[in-house]
Parts: sequence; structure tokens; C-alpha cells
Amino acid sequence: MKSDPDAGGLFAPERVAVVGATEREGSIGAAIFQNLVDFAGDVVPVNPSRDSVFGQECYPDVASVPDGVDLVVIVVPPSIAVEAVQGAGEAGVRNVVVITAGFSETGPEGAQREQELRSVAEEYDLTLVGPNSLGVLSTPLNLNATFGPSNALPGSLSFMSQSGAFITAVLDWANDQGIGFKDVVSLGNKAVLNESDFLRYWQDDPETNVVLGYLEGVADGRTFIDTARDVTQETPAVVVKSGRTDAGAEAASSHTGTIAGSEAAYEAAFEQAGVVRAENVQELFDYARALDGLPTLDSEQVGIITNAGGPGVMATDAVGESQLTMASFTDATLSSLEEAMPEEANIYNPVDAIGDADIERFETALDTVLGDDNVGCAIVISAPTAIVDFGELATVVADRQAAHGKPVVACLMGGERTERAAELLGEAGIPNYFDPARAVGSLDALAVQQDVEARSYEEPETFDVDQERAREILTEAADRGARRLGVEAMDILDAYGLPIPDAELVEDPADAVKAASNIDGDVVMKIVSPDIVHKSDIGGVAVGVPQDDVADTYETLVTRARNYQPDATILGVQVQEMVDTEAGTETILGMNRDPQFGPLVLFGLGGVFVEVLEDTSVRVAPVSGREAGEMVDELDSAPLLRGARGRTPADEAAVEEAIQRLSQLVTDFDAILELDVNPLLATADGVQALDVRLTIDPEEL
Amino acid sequence: MKSDPDAGGLFAPERVAVVGATEREGSIGAAIFQNLVDFAGDVVPVNPSRDSVFGQECYPDVASVPDGVDLVVIVVPPSIAVEAVQGAGEAGVRNVVVITAGFSETGPEGAQREQELRSVAEEYDLTLVGPNSLGVLSTPLNLNATFGPSNALPGSLSFMSQSGAFITAVLDWANDQGIGFKDVVSLGNKAVLNESDFLRYWQDDPETNVVLGYLEGVADGRTFIDTARDVTQETPAVVVKSGRTDAGAEAASSHTGTIAGSEAAYEAAFEQAGVVRAENVQELFDYARALDGLPTLDSEQVGIITNAGGPGVMATDAVGESQLTMASFTDATLSSLEEAMPEEANIYNPVDAIGDADIERFETALDTVLGDDNVGCAIVISAPTAIVDFGELATVVADRQAAHGKPVVACLMGGERTERAAELLGEAGIPNYFDPARAVGSLDALAVQQDVEARSYEEPETFDVDQERAREILTEAADRGARRLGVEAMDILDAYGLPIPDAELVEDPADAVKAASNIDGDVVMKIVSPDIVHKSDIGGVAVGVPQDDVADTYETLVTRARNYQPDATILGVQVQEMVDTEAGTETILGMNRDPQFGPLVLFGLGGVFVEVLEDTSVRVAPVSGREAGEMVDELDSAPLLRGARGRTPADEAAVEEAIQRLSQLVTDFDAILELDVNPLLATADGVQALDVRLTIDPEEL
Repeated sequence: MKSDPDAGGLFAPERVAVVGATEREGSIGAAIFQNLVDFAGDVVPVNPSRDSVFGQECYPDVASVPDGVDLVVIVVPPSIAVEAVQGAGEAGVRNVVVITAGFSETGPEGAQREQELRSVAEEYDLTLVGPNSLGVLSTPLNLNATFGPSNALPGSLSFMSQSGAFITAVLDWANDQGIGFKDVVSLGNKAVLNESDFLRYWQDDPETNVVLGYLEGVADGRTFIDTARDVTQETPAVVVKSGRTDAGAEAASSHTGTIAGSEAAYEAAFEQAGVVRAENVQELFDYARALDGLPTLDSEQVGIITNAGGPGVMATDAVGESQLTMASFTDATLSSLEEAMPEEANIYNPVDAIGDADIERFETALDTVLGDDNVGCAIVISAPTAIVDFGELATVVADRQAAHGKPVVACLMGGERTERAAELLGEAGIPNYFDPARAVGSLDALAVQQDVEARSYEEPETFDVDQERAREILTEAADRGARRLGVEAMDILDAYGLPIPDAELVEDPADAVKAASNIDGDVVMKIVSPDIVHKSDIGGVAVGVPQDDVADTYETLVTRARNYQPDATILGVQVQEMVDTEAGTETILGMNRDPQFGPLVLFGLGGVFVEVLEDTSVRVAPVSGREAGEMVDELDSAPLLRGARGRTPADEAAVEEAIQRLSQLVTDFDAILELDVNPLLATADGVQALDVRLTIDPEEL
Repeated sequence: MKSDPDAGGLFAPERVAVVGATEREGSIGAAIFQNLVDFAGDVVPVNPSRDSVFGQECYPDVASVPDGVDLVVIVVPPSIAVEAVQGAGEAGVRNVVVITAGFSETGPEGAQREQELRSVAEEYDLTLVGPNSLGVLSTPLNLNATFGPSNALPGSLSFMSQSGAFITAVLDWANDQGIGFKDVVSLGNKAVLNESDFLRYWQDDPETNVVLGYLEGVADGRTFIDTARDVTQETPAVVVKSGRTDAGAEAASSHTGTIAGSEAAYEAAFEQAGVVRAENVQELFDYARALDGLPTLDSEQVGIITNAGGPGVMATDAVGESQLTMASFTDATLSSLEEAMPEEANIYNPVDAIGDADIERFETALDTVLGDDNVGCAIVISAPTAIVDFGELATVVADRQAAHGKPVVACLMGGERTERAAELLGEAGIPNYFDPARAVGSLDALAVQQDVEARSYEEPETFDVDQERAREILTEAADRGARRLGVEAMDILDAYGLPIPDAELVEDPADAVKAASNIDGDVVMKIVSPDIVHKSDIGGVAVGVPQDDVADTYETLVTRARNYQPDATILGVQVQEMVDTEAGTETILGMNRDPQFGPLVLFGLGGVFVEVLEDTSVRVAPVSGREAGEMVDELDSAPLLRGARGRTPADEAAVEEAIQRLSQLVTDFDAILELDVNPLLATADGVQALDVRLTIDPEEL
């Protein structure tokens, strides 16, 4: 894969060759060639079995084209597609779109073919889209190198989709809605270029305001997060990720062979990357249009002006369910409104200008509300009345938005009578919806994006840890054939600065007594064996052992373990200081590896909170300080860490540091496949890891 | 308010008088009169200051109209509106629509006027809509007695709205969408007729298939639940209730003066009443159209047929997030599909007929899938392709739905090219959406309604209780001036069959010793004072008191209470058997009174589950056995009652019985304003109420 491909060559070529161009009706080769007829540059058909295609001279291969080409579109059958790509590469062309299907989506033979394609692309350093793609499209040069039935209107949205059919549906619909695009790409099987490459390209494209995506998976989770995090600081990215549910993920796998990362991982990754997630097609375009057309949101306080009480209440409800809040007007605003409105009107937010409101009353109210420093954005709602002409109202809304520079959305409610008004509003970038909830949703998308842009990315902190010591412990375990480690691995946590109780692993009763003597008071003793997972269940844990009983207890624990499982490897007994778990809150700090995103860190409160209520939060490692804080915030049970019900508040900073240190550990060692610190006891004085389990893959050490 | 008004007279009159009819441009009196021009019956203008209105002879009052009228529409100014209504009543007219505004929505004077209007209506037994109404409309007789700008298309939806402006917006939009109505009513201030009356009327109206409502509140919660529960067994009712959020409720109150019941109460009431709740306008009409046009759903298994993988995945995701499930096809279905489909197609659900699918392939696939007994309904998805004509596909979809009698919804995706197809589908009652999620939402509404119709309403059980004893305890407390009761009221629970520990309230140390001697082992002793709420905090509770210490402990508790609050009324000390709370799960069973719905019963697990996680369920009393079961089911923490994490499962039947017995208690006594049994200990052997607090209103005794 190219580290920094210039996707620009795909969207702004000068000369395009269609390899496999033909005149055969219903063929893809004919459809693409005909779609390219209005391209601002040159289009050259390539096909060894034809002299001409639709009246243009046809060449046997790319190398034979006089003056060369800078983009090649491949539509030949799969059996000769790789060869055709190689021909393009040999002819010095860098930009290739492989329309041809019959690659990894069809089974092992196709997967092998895709591997060959990838090798050729690497050899010739190709910027390659597909295979199994509908093609690419870019409106500034009127480049339509797709075989779909519709072209796109010009616009400032750029759209990538893992479903070519979805592109055809969207373009047909968008043309009708007057929604335009800058670039569109059908990602196909993503053999070379993937979503991260296009995100990166569109970030630097001055003609792209918003990136839209339909994805069923991402090719490389880490690259996606790093790229998107950077891109979304300036260019909003709205994505529908399908395959969210188990059934959907299965369907996606059968559709594009996507190996599903977990839904939790995608949710965390999109959040960390600042991607605005849309749940469905309607949200995808509602959000994209708002982010494209409206001014930046400076504050989340909404002012509502309506001539209809009911829809005003609906809008207010929707605000209550969003990230936005209802603005409180200043006294000056209230005075102005009182003066301008009839007595029966409501001058408080939502402003009800009542049914006989004319254009002037709407204009005054909107102007007054937008002029209020407490108001960050506004919604104008109108039911159809004999007095209000929607076209005039649309003009007023557009003018007032321009004058105040604050986002305004409209609900001019009705049927055909709203069409002209919607067009006028659309020209000013203002969406109009019948449903007040959708209008609020549009403003809410601005608020989400504002938060993304406002947060500054902080590098995850690198703590001063003893990585070598951790590696030694892991290597030692691997050398003795262990795959699952328990308390004997507590020192790995210690090496990464996670506090653990005083404890020692001893191999005979005498050492146990010695170890205990270094500890004040009674001790806890645990059998240590990689083969015995549930130590408590077999009586392998003794709590509150007086110093005098330590030797006997050693023998008892070992005997019980031997009786329970004669062939178990017994590493010894851990002698540990007593910890008062009642003095704090038991939490769980865990990690597993996601196939797409790598190490996922999980945090939650112990016991029923994780196991029954599933109240956990997840982030892709490495986790920054801000993200660790969010992981605590997100828990419904967070108040229990913070002193709810008369508890002593836990040291939250210590909890967050523990999350980050664990994140560093699992990022440093690919060999750690799963890890659970359970419990991590959180008290007012800090945290302490009381037990650990991990699974390792020695191959990765 | 009439107990059984015949709203039919409002929608199917023979002769209508418009009191206040005029020709003045822009006036409501002119607008209504002109909207009535196409009415199938007669329309008569009434106005003492005119001889004729738009060429029709005008009469000074209703009594003077020759041959009489059977519906009167009042549009005179508020000052003479009540008089005009009285005139109609005296003339023997029963059906009145009061358009005139300026009643309770405007302040105290208006409220007084509304009270007079209500008295007149009672006196003449009027079936009265309004005041402050847009009017009524019914398509079979082409009756448009509204002053809105649009008439309605004929149809089988009947619509009531607490916002007149919302009706004008909806009609304008619906006409454009081809959505028709049977009756429409603007409820106005609901001085006489309210939502329950219209629900009841439309239940028996053969021309109404689905009732739609926009409500900001209900006039009488109990009547609403009882009526709607009955109606929704046969006629679906889809309602947007606005004022869901705090901000929205405040806006609703300012709009229509609605006194908000709590959102939790509405949610419970709608659930108990079988009302399908829509969150926004889009859902309101999506659900209504599905329930109106589609056949009944027999099973929730969905089959999906698509020519586009991506949208198929989106639909599958939406199914995963709905009440529906993806169907598993039989082997016979899979064989048939395998035979009919090309090799690259996916024959498993969602069926991907791939991009080159023609009409025949779609038809075969749909026919095969609908013929599968495992399939209850289907979604047909098509991206635009050169091969598929959407009009033809629409015909196939409608035919196959008719042939199999199973609901089918469509996602023929695109812009203008879908319009003709959408019309054809619409004629067959089949909705077409671009967004697969909305198509799934339509089918999901059928599933919700199917559940409503499938459940048989069971009368809440009436347990054999000692109501008199409970009354005596309440009266006695009221007589001594108490408003807040504590453990001294435990016997109320006992009288209603809620198990309580052995306990006795004693007033001196000697009686305490005697009481303790009737109990085995150690006892619990608690100070009993209506003035001391947090007994534990002041050392007013002694747990594990040996029999020998009972007398001393009595003195200690009383002394502590006196020191803490010298003026506190001390009723004595409760001597109670020790209960091992570790042996079960602490739950909370509570009740408060909602302004709209009366007694609300609440259940949850104790401690953090209620206080921090707010994991509770609520129902309007009286609560049936099924509803009590649902209250337990709904809790996220329910597994903890059922043996999660090695617990002994609690006796769930006993929990449900306790909920019902408490429901009976609070239904029997309006005097109980609030009540909390906390904890109600649930063990494998049953439940036990360990403490109680209640607030009473002696006026209601």
C-alpha cells in the first residue's frame, strides 16, 4: 500500500484510456465509454479486437496510445485484468481504476488474483481504485468514469462508498434534490487505495467541504484513526458504517468479505477519530448538507421562531433530546420582541409569533433573536397560512442568516407550496424540513463537529516504564510454554507503574514464612498455577492468614491444587498483603485485540456493573489522557466512583493514569492478546491492581 | 363532560350553520364559509348584521333557520361566543364546533369564559369541539368546516390534533403525498370533547382504519387509558405526544396551558393503552401508512431481496435494531433460489440478486421468499440499473403481496424515476422509501401493533384485603395530624397482604421486653416518630439487640430522639424480628400521584440501581399481573433477581404479587399521595417489606 498516494490524479486526469471499451449494448465497457463523452479531457478506447469504438480510433494496448494517458480504467474480464493493469504500469501510467469484478469477493481463486493485482500495483507504484468498483467521478472536469446510469451535479461534497449500487441510488436521488458532489469514488475491494487515502486527499482539496462515506469496514484501523483524527480537525467526515448489528455484520461479510471488527471498536474508533457517525441514509445527507451549507456554530443555544405552537413544541422536544439547549433571551431581546409582537404572542423561547404573523413580524423576530448574544443558531418554523408567502419567508431567512452569520434552519411546513422556498433556501445552504426534529438534527450535527474541531489532539502520554522487565516476564512465561498467565504476572503491571500490593511468589513453606514476615499483619495466600483458572473455587486462596499459620497454609494450598488437578504446573504460592476491598470501589481494566483496530482498552465498575449491566467504556489504544477521562465519564455508574451515596470519592486521576499505563503496556506488546486487571481497586488514595489474567501469543514476542 | 358523546354528528351532519359567517376578506368567518362550499349537505350563514353571505340568505340566529340545522360552527368574537352556543342549544342543536379563541389559553378571564361554555354544554348536553379550534373536516360528505387553507383527500386515516396549525401543515403535505383522511378534528382547548371521545368514536367507524394523534397532554388520564386500551385492540392508534422533554413540556404549557403529567407517566400509560408512540412527524406518518395499507403481520421474520449489497446490509442492520428478526429460509427455499439465481448471487437472507437482476429474477426471488413459512414479511430493495424498470418492479411487488397476503415494503431507490413506481405501490398500500431504515421501521410498527392486538386485557386482580383496617390506620394518623407516616404504618401493608416482619410498636420498656419475648433471638429496635425521617442517622435504629438489652435500648433510643429533636412526636419504639437482608435482594416498591394519570407504581432494585443508575419501571395503577411481570422484565438489573452471578433466584411471582397488592392499596386510597416500601426484600421464599414511608392527604380520606 502506498503511504501517501496522490488520489488527485484519479479525479483530475488529462487523458483517460478505457481498457476494454466496446460498443456492445448493455456492456460495462460501452456504458463507461459513453459516460465519459462529456469529459473535459481526452478519452481513448483500448481494445485489441476493435479498430474503433463509437467512432473513435481504438488502440490494442495502453502503450500504443499516442501521447500517452494519465488515467486507465480497466473493464476487461477478470482473467486478463491483472495483465491489463501491468500493461498500464509498463506504459508509465500511475492512476488505475479497476472496474472488473471477480476478485476476492468471489472466493479463493479471486483472492489469489487480487494478491497478484496488489503485487503489480506495488511494483509499478500505482494509485489504484478497486477492483470490483463502479468507478470514479469528479464534477469540475465532468469526469464520469463509472458505469452507473446517473452523473452527479457539481457541489462540494465528496463521497466514497463501499457499495457501488448505493452510489447509483444516491446520485439519482441527489440530482433530484439539487445536491451536488465534487468527487465520488466506489472503493470496491480496496486492494490498494482505501478510505484513509481518500480522506487524506480530500482534506487538502479546497473544493471539498465535507466528506461522506458509506463503509462496511475499514481496511486498516490504526491508519484510519490517525488519518481521520487529523482530517476531521478541519474537514467534517460523515460516515454510515453498516454491519452494526450481528445480522448486519454477517450480511456485510457476505457482501464484501469484510472481516468485522467489533461494533464497540468501530464506535470507539469513530469517536476517537472525530468522524460524525450517521445511523442511516437520511442522517448521512441531513448532516452532510448542514455541515456543507451552514456557517460555523459558535454556541449551542438555539432560538426558535414559529407561527405554530405545536410544531414549536416538537422542535423544543428535539432540542431537549440533542446536544443543543434552548437559548435564554436577554432582557433587551424580550423588550424588543414584546414591542414587535401582538399581546397573544409568546416572546419567550420558542417564540410563537402566532397564526396571523406576516413576513415583517417573522423578520423582526428572527433579526432580534439572532442579534441576541445568548443565541448561537435559530430555527424558523411556519405552518402554511394565507398571510405568509413561503418564498418571501425563505428570502428573509437567507438574508438574516447572511447578516448575522449564525446558522439558521427552516421548517416551512407543507407540500408543493414549499418547493420554491426550499430551492431559495437551498441556494443559501439552508436545509428545509417538514419535520422539526430533522431541522434540529441538522444543527446538532454542527454542534458535534464543533466539538471535534475544538478538541486538540494530544499525543498519548509515554510514561517512564520498565519495558525490559515486562518483556523478561513475558518471555520467561513463553519459554515455559505458558499461554495464560495469572498473579505470577503481576510484576508486569508493576513494571508499567500500575500499583500492586506487596507480594512475593515463593516455592516452599520457609520462603513463605520469610515473605510474610516482610508484611505487617495477616496475609493473603494464593496458589499460582497457569492451569488453575478459578483459584477460589478449589480452595486455592486463603485470606487473613496469621503469620503463624503461613507455613501450614502453604502446604494446604499446594495439596488442594494437586488433588484438584494432579498434572497442573504449580509455580508456587503468592504471599500478599491484605487489602481492604471495602475501602474502595472495585473496577475492571481490561483489553482485547480487535481484528481491525488492534488493542481495545475497556474500563468499568466490577461485578454486576460489568457482568449484568454491561456498563463499560472502550477506546482503541493508545489512549490519551482526555480519552481516559471520557472512559470514566461515559459510565452510568461513574457517580459511584465520585462519592455517590456517601462514598469517599476515588482518586479519579489515578484511575485515568492506570488506564493510560495499561494502554501503553498493550500497545508496546503485540504478544498480549487479552488482559484483565480485575479488580483494580480505586480508593481515595489511588488505585491498586489486585489480580490479573492475560493471554499471550509467544510468536509476537 | 358527556360519558358517551356521539362524535358522529360532528362529521356527518345534514345541515350546517356558520354563526358569524361573513364576507370580509381574511376573516375566519369568510374562510370557513367558503371552505364549506362543496359540502354535500346544506350550509346556512347566521349573522344578525347581514342579510346574505356570498349570495346565501343569512339568518339572525340559529333558531330562525327554517328546517333547523344539526351542526353549528361558532366563529363570533369571544365576548358573545358562549351566548351563541347557548342559542344553538336552545334551538335544539347538539353538535357544536367552537372556532372562537380567547378562552382558557389567554388567562383567568378566558378560563372563566371556558367554564361558562362548559356549563352551557352540560345544560344542553352538547357534543362540543373547541373552543380555540381550527375546526373539523370529514371527506365522505366533503365537509370542510375548518378555516385552514387546504382540504383533505379522502382516505381511511382519522386524525386529531391539539395544534390547529399542525393540521394545516399536515394537510398541505399529505395532499402532495397522496395521503388521505376520513375525519380530521382540531381539538382546541378540549372544554368538552377530548381525545378519548374521538378515539372511542373512530373505533366504531368502519371507514377509519388508523387513528393518528398529535397531543400535548391528555385531559383525563384514567379515561384515556381505559378507552385507548379497548380501541387499540382493533384500531391502531399512532400518537406523537410532545412536551416529552422538560423544555418541551414548558413550551407545551405556554402553548395550550397543558398541565404536564410526567413523561414517565405518559410512557407507561401509552404502553398500557396499546398506543403506538411516534417520536416525530415522520414516524407518525410512516407508521400510520404502514398500519393502514399493509396486511396483518403474522410473524416477525423478515425476508430481504435486493439487487444492491450495501443497501441490503443497511436494511439488515435496521432489522437487527428493531423488534423484527431476519428469517432463516427453509432448505426448499434455498434450493429454489439456487436454481433461479446466478452463481454470484447470495441466496441467503438478505438475498442479493446482484446488479444484473431483471424483473423476472426479482419476481421469482420475492415469490419464493414470501412462499416460505419462515417468512412473515419482506422488503424489496433496488438500486437504479439499466435493466430494472421501477414501474414494472412496483407492479410485481404489489402483485406478489396480494398473492401471498404478507406485508411487503419497498426501497426502490432514486429520485424522479421512483415517482411513478411509488404511486403504483401507494395504490396497493405499499410504502416506498429511499432509506432502508424507514422501510424496516414501517414493518416494525406492524409488529408493535400485532403485539398490542395479541395481548388480552386482563382486569387487575382484586386481592382479598382488609381495607377497613388500612383505613383505620390512616384515619388514626390523620386524626393526630400526621401527614408523613413511617414504620408505624407497616400494618397498612399487612392489611393488604404484603408480608412484613413480626413487629410490635411499644410505648414503654416493659412492653418492649414483652414484645421481644414473642420473637426468637436478637431483635431490631427503631424509634417511631413521624418527625424523624432519617432514623439511622441519629442512632435511632439498633440492630441485633439481645433480649437482655431490650429495656435499656428502649431508653437509649428515646433519649437519642429527644436530644436530636426535643419537640418531635415520639410514638414509641418498634421491636422487630431480625431479618437477614443478605439472604435476598433489596428492591424498592413505590408510588406517587401524577396530575394526569393518578397513582404511578414504581419498581426497581434498591440502592445504587435506583439512585445512581435510575433503573426503574413505572405503570399507572391499577396494575395487572401481566403488567407487573413487565415491570420486572424491563429492569436492566432484573438478572440479579433471577440468579445472576451465583445468587439464589428470588420468588418472582411473589414480587409481582406485591406490586399488584400495592397497586390495589394506592388505587383504593386517594389519600395516599406518596408511598415507598424500601427495602422490599426479595428472597427465594417470597418478599418482605422491611420499611415504609408514606405521605397522606387527610382531605381525601
